[in-house]
Amino acid sequence: MTRTTSLYEPVLAEMSQVEETLSSLARVDTPWLRDMLAAVLFAGGKRMRPAVSLLAGKFGVFDPALSVPLAASLELLHTASLVHDDVVDGAGTRRGRPTAGSLFDNHGAVILGDYVFAQAAALVARTGHAEVVRLFAETMVMMSMAQLAEDRAAFDYNQTVDDYLRRIRGKTASLFAIAAQGGALLSGVRDDDALALRGYGENLGIAFQIVDDILDFSGDEREMGKPVGSDLMQGTLTLPSLMLIERYPDENPIRRLFKDRGGPEHLREAIEVVCGSEILGEAYATAKGFGDAALAALARLPRTRERESLEEIAVYVLERRT
Amino acid sequence: MTRTTSLYEPVLAEMSQVEETLSSLARVDTPWLRDMLAAVLFAGGKRMRPAVSLLAGKFGVFDPALSVPLAASLELLHTASLVHDDVVDGAGTRRGRPTAGSLFDNHGAVILGDYVFAQAAALVARTGHAEVVRLFAETMVMMSMAQLAEDRAAFDYNQTVDDYLRRIRGKTASLFAIAAQGGALLSGVRDDDALALRGYGENLGIAFQIVDDILDFSGDEREMGKPVGSDLMQGTLTLPSLMLIERYPDENPIRRLFKDRGGPEHLREAIEVVCGSEILGEAYATAKGFGDAALAALARLPRTRERESLEEIAVYVLERRT
Repeated sequence: MTRTTSLYEPVLAEMSQVEETLSSLARVDTPWLRDMLAAVLFAGGKRMRPAVSLLAGKFGVFDPALSVPLAASLELLHTASLVHDDVVDGAGTRRGRPTAGSLFDNHGAVILGDYVFAQAAALVARTGHAEVVRLFAETMVMMSMAQLAEDRAAFDYNQTVDDYLRRIRGKTASLFAIAAQGGALLSGVRDDDALALRGYGENLGIAFQIVDDILDFSGDEREMGKPVGSDLMQGTLTLPSLMLIERYPDENPIRRLFKDRGGPEHLREAIEVVCGSEILGEAYATAKGFGDAALAALARLPRTRERESLEEIAVYVLERRT
Repeated sequence: MTRTTSLYEPVLAEMSQVEETLSSLARVDTPWLRDMLAAVLFAGGKRMRPAVSLLAGKFGVFDPALSVPLAASLELLHTASLVHDDVVDGAGTRRGRPTAGSLFDNHGAVILGDYVFAQAAALVARTGHAEVVRLFAETMVMMSMAQLAEDRAAFDYNQTVDDYLRRIRGKTASLFAIAAQGGALLSGVRDDDALALRGYGENLGIAFQIVDDILDFSGDEREMGKPVGSDLMQGTLTLPSLMLIERYPDENPIRRLFKDRGGPEHLREAIEVVCGSEILGEAYATAKGFGDAALAALARLPRTRERESLEEIAVYVLERRT
């Protein structure tokens, strides 16, 4: 947390309040629910969405009584979607990490995720800001729609980089986008500045997800806490894979991997080919393009400590190793 | 539908608009998503929650542009919770009906449920009514909390009728309660009348769920579309079971059933003992008590066709066979 903590410097006090809000949610009377919530809410996340939201709020008249609930609700929305994403399909698809579904059970994890979604909705409702509430619901729609599309596309070899970008825009970037825009709107930031901040959030989110997908090939398994290649094992084509397929459409290890639905020898080969080529560098350049777009979106805003912090976050997202 | 259609007579036009709203949600460009939505949204539900909500709205200045989205969102919230409730835990727990999880797959059903939740949230946000949005989120919290409690209590023999009533209050009655109260608030009905309508909805919901749980013992498998005893098979103790346990705490077939986690011969015996005793009649009397409380809650409201319709619904809920 050291690295991200210093990144969030202008909003550290408010980040503590977000943490306190999350803790208070986990302080329920029912011991088993307390344990479940603690397991998913305090699993070492970077709290990047709340931070972006709070920083964006500082461009207007910041009211912690509104902005802290929104920031916490965005972290909850993120958490709930992770919990649901980790629900497995029986013995068939085993995901690479200890899932909420394995800590509890599948059905329990589903309802726990619903509970966290509901608390997110309750917190955002507390802002009483109709437009932010509307954007929040719309974000949930976009996220689940993209997740459905990703599910649907599993082990489908016929996908393009455009399909991928559309998916991560919904799955990941939409939440960063509402973080920045919603945070700004709550503080009464002018609509055009709030839209600029939305642009920052969206591009940041795309860069973030691309780097995530690169790290699934090149990351350190111990630092990441999950085995490399878990996307491919689940049949998910991300940017590096799609770049490999575009380059060698007829014959490549991913084609073979998908044909036999995840043979480990083909997986190893696919990872080696991607990591041994220039593909990761090019995928990284694509991410950097979105990171630059995020920075460019900030250009119209005053040069404050908060803007600097948002800029540093955009740089960090590209440099991070976990 | 004939029976329920005539029940909803004062709001038939608005019910068509609710149906149209739901249909329009299912008219998405993506064929597979269209099919998924059609499968869960048009599965022959009674649309009781939207009807209650619309009827309650008629006690004030009714605006279909607000009340129809709320009514549709309540049906979506109900649908989403059913979809999630049907997600199974691997081969271990097989539920008695063709589930969304079996029509699609577990993970797909989870995300589909999220999508339907999100659309529900988007529709309720459209009302722009801060208090109704807040109540909606609170209802989601109560529903998921109760569902978690039910999960947690599966195959736990040490439960009381009070535990059961608390659970169904959250799981089922909270949604009927917001249907009535929220519908009223949107039409500017006075707070105390809206609370009376909430009381109607809550008591109606409890009666509804008790009858549901009675039908799980005595219902016709073909009419119900699921095998009798499915609650007990899943380890869920409902009112009839709990009454049996209170009567014969030390020795009864449910105790034996739970000990070996669902042996079919103990299940048959448990159903026979419950159906052969006066327990179902007494459970029905309990349901009728809540039905009467629902009717009593309406006493302060003007004697309109809509009130009559709400009264008929309370009677129907007790008489229904499916």
